[in-house]
Amino acid sequence: MTENINAALDRAARLFGKNEAVVDGDVRWTYDELDRRVRAFDGELDRLGLMKGDVVGVLALNSAAHLIAWLGAPRSGRVLNEINTRLSTPEIRYILDDSAARMLLVDDAFLEAGRELLRDCDTLDHLVYAGAGQSPADCVSLEVMTTSGSEASPVEVLDEDVAGIFYTGGTTGRPKGVLLSHGNLASNAKHALLCLGYDEHDRYLHAGPMFHLADGASTVALTWVGGAHVIVPGFTPDGWLRAVSEEKITKAMLVPTMITMLMAHEFGPDTDLSSLRSVLYGASPMPQALLATAAERLNTDFCQVYGMTEAAPIVTFMTHEDHRRGLAGEDPDAAVRLRSAGRPVVGVELEIRAPGGGARQPAGEVGEIVVRGPNITSGYLNRPEETAEVLPGDGWYHTGDMGYQDEAGYVFVVDRLKDMIISGGENVYSTEVENALYRHGDVEEVAVFGLPDEQWGEAVHAAVRLRPGSTTTAEMLRDHVRCLLAGFKVPREIHLVDQPLPKSGAGKILKRDLRAEFASRASVEVGAG
Amino acid sequence: MTENINAALDRAARLFGKNEAVVDGDVRWTYDELDRRVRAFDGELDRLGLMKGDVVGVLALNSAAHLIAWLGAPRSGRVLNEINTRLSTPEIRYILDDSAARMLLVDDAFLEAGRELLRDCDTLDHLVYAGAGQSPADCVSLEVMTTSGSEASPVEVLDEDVAGIFYTGGTTGRPKGVLLSHGNLASNAKHALLCLGYDEHDRYLHAGPMFHLADGASTVALTWVGGAHVIVPGFTPDGWLRAVSEEKITKAMLVPTMITMLMAHEFGPDTDLSSLRSVLYGASPMPQALLATAAERLNTDFCQVYGMTEAAPIVTFMTHEDHRRGLAGEDPDAAVRLRSAGRPVVGVELEIRAPGGGARQPAGEVGEIVVRGPNITSGYLNRPEETAEVLPGDGWYHTGDMGYQDEAGYVFVVDRLKDMIISGGENVYSTEVENALYRHGDVEEVAVFGLPDEQWGEAVHAAVRLRPGSTTTAEMLRDHVRCLLAGFKVPREIHLVDQPLPKSGAGKILKRDLRAEFASRASVEVGAG
Repeated sequence: MTENINAALDRAARLFGKNEAVVDGDVRWTYDELDRRVRAFDGELDRLGLMKGDVVGVLALNSAAHLIAWLGAPRSGRVLNEINTRLSTPEIRYILDDSAARMLLVDDAFLEAGRELLRDCDTLDHLVYAGAGQSPADCVSLEVMTTSGSEASPVEVLDEDVAGIFYTGGTTGRPKGVLLSHGNLASNAKHALLCLGYDEHDRYLHAGPMFHLADGASTVALTWVGGAHVIVPGFTPDGWLRAVSEEKITKAMLVPTMITMLMAHEFGPDTDLSSLRSVLYGASPMPQALLATAAERLNTDFCQVYGMTEAAPIVTFMTHEDHRRGLAGEDPDAAVRLRSAGRPVVGVELEIRAPGGGARQPAGEVGEIVVRGPNITSGYLNRPEETAEVLPGDGWYHTGDMGYQDEAGYVFVVDRLKDMIISGGENVYSTEVENALYRHGDVEEVAVFGLPDEQWGEAVHAAVRLRPGSTTTAEMLRDHVRCLLAGFKVPREIHLVDQPLPKSGAGKILKRDLRAEFASRASVEVGAG
Repeated sequence: MTENINAALDRAARLFGKNEAVVDGDVRWTYDELDRRVRAFDGELDRLGLMKGDVVGVLALNSAAHLIAWLGAPRSGRVLNEINTRLSTPEIRYILDDSAARMLLVDDAFLEAGRELLRDCDTLDHLVYAGAGQSPADCVSLEVMTTSGSEASPVEVLDEDVAGIFYTGGTTGRPKGVLLSHGNLASNAKHALLCLGYDEHDRYLHAGPMFHLADGASTVALTWVGGAHVIVPGFTPDGWLRAVSEEKITKAMLVPTMITMLMAHEFGPDTDLSSLRSVLYGASPMPQALLATAAERLNTDFCQVYGMTEAAPIVTFMTHEDHRRGLAGEDPDAAVRLRSAGRPVVGVELEIRAPGGGARQPAGEVGEIVVRGPNITSGYLNRPEETAEVLPGDGWYHTGDMGYQDEAGYVFVVDRLKDMIISGGENVYSTEVENALYRHGDVEEVAVFGLPDEQWGEAVHAAVRLRPGSTTTAEMLRDHVRCLLAGFKVPREIHLVDQPLPKSGAGKILKRDLRAEFASRASVEVGAG
């Protein structure tokens, strides 16, 4: 089987050469131009001595340079390494060392960090400048590379060749490099096309970070059908509204936080969202009230994806129709399903397996979500043990997410396996307790987690930040939960905090930090007692 | 990579269990029921001693039994062998021997042929009766098999495991068994979904033969999304119109001959085509006048696929939009493109290579059409030499079709490589000459082919059947062609014939028979001269 993501740009250049491919500030490239630049970049990688399998890191805000790297680095079998810009320099250094990156591409915002990394990382040979100004003398100029007219030597690129390493911090431990092959990314691109329905008339806005697969899910797909990539450096409500209005955006990806920010923003008189046909959101279900407001103010359809880096990333999808029916309020099942992650996409198999055991769970029963498909990673770079944990050789990837499917196959994610609390032999899903706490009007932010407990094995704890000015006490919150949930789910202790809860670069609450903090407090208390 | 077509029915049963899956006369099955029957059939194959890799032949008119076989035979790694019902019994025997089929499934129309084959084919152990009546004593009953509640032993089915052998007579030599893996058929199903856009609301009519991949192209795809398979035994204009009207068909596949028959048919007062959203046609482009009439009378959109068994089968696609623009008549390019086969689908790479050489041809230049993708066969069963000819190890499948791409990538198929005539060093594409002859009002049917010629290497010959009552002479036809084409393309001899031209089971004109006939005539003439 020979399938690689090069087919996407090849097709676009052949069929849609005169179509607009990239808009990024003053940059406007047709697919012919993008193709020329990507090929030249690939040729220059040859010239700079990068071999098949060598890694090209990217550390930059959103820009056309990401697209060059996405399509050009893997073209002759080299490997793309998109780096989360929110990481600290030591974290980035760890990633570059782990992947043995030979080249790092930076923009103006990360030029100084890049210089430091070039000095400190042994494997790193080249710093490529992709900024707005003149290329510094100690860098290779991306503009020069992409206009050099170079051609790479022909090399066969197969399905199983690694195209990208995407580091996932997750919420525990050091980042792990997820290996995604050409076949993985090509499969995901087809799955994306099947659910998102891009075509050559679409204009997609890259407003979420291009280093993240929530946005990357659409990158190869959109290219394959010849749609236009419109790029803004990052998300701001104002910039997003302006880009949609001026560039006639048809489809866009947003995470719920961005939608919340948009809804809090006043739309200017020049706002024209008439071109917008669909907003894709991911990372988490959206509160129904927010969805309803957003659907009305943006006057568009919504769809949702659930996935993970290891699945390149799409696993399930909730359609426009699901959203319309859920919001219409006539069908109670449809309304409940708005809180789901939708259903498995064509091409990805999904099962719910009993925790620990492995038997397939019937509808409604919680278990671990396991998935299978041509999009699933072969594992983590340099991590045979962690790979074996999630890919135990039964053909399925064990996501570590706990959830259930309803009768019609809608998937409800209830918790991370690692965040599940086992208290007195009962399973407590932290999200269920969190949702109960969120139903109290004074709760601003909450995280529920387990701490070791002599009597119960683990005890349920919650960290809660209240809305400013609230006088609610921890005991009142416990009473509130007691009205909603079984006694064993009520947090033993609710810790009221003043500061926002600690979060990862991707915006996930870091429960491991909370566990560490409150476990040490507990031991201090015990020590003091 | 683990991808198999079992995922399609698994998904449909899980997500759309209560949806109608199959309508065939009195049979109405939900996806739950289809799933139960397919699993039981698979279990009975175990019980009857068929192992992974064993072949199950099917020789029957269209019926739900085909769907059971399509989904059930490959389920545990056994192999489906759908047989062209128009073949003679010796031809079918050759196919069953070549594939070493262990089981043959027949309906009432083929029960006697089946008995003969069971007697004569050494490998054949079981005859399965899928007819309407009581199962005869010498047969296994499909109804009993599919309601047995059996379960097959679990077995891993991989991407590369063969799921089906599809014999392609082509127009030369003995039929060759094209090996299609689970991965090939799953990829094609995704490509079909990408261009045909099936969803769970679709009701597809199987009116073309289910043994042929023109229909089979949609079988896995439609199942994957939970659409309804409505089945009629075979195509008749009346039966087709009734099925579309009564069963609210949304999508259907027809070959141009069927559309011609439909257009010659009077639509009864009960005809209601309001549900019909799209007609897919294949095998050849359609004359524009026929398309325009059909679009109006059927009041629906059209789309076209070009492909071949070796590609499982989809290669290129012409969209609804292409058809609408072509028929609107405002854009001359779009009108010309109605004669094309559309453009390569997402997932299938296509190049035009210089004949003999291999260099990629620029737009507009004719060459051999070569294709690549996860849908491409690994080769022909028991035919290493013929496999090496079309899969020479460069990663591309050499289709043997000659054609060109225009500036926008539309593919125009001009000839079979084997039918290309080289006369005095010039390439003559037979379809070009045939099209010129068809433009003469008296020509009913035509085939152009080359015969050996001492002076020119090959000479252009044509066999023409005129419309009844026509008085046109061969010389008048040569004059007609001379006005349209270069002198070297004008047939040296035009043979007027009274009978329909010889055709294969799939309706293709058998040029090898014409060559043989007229070559022997020529030698008789020479002998007599």
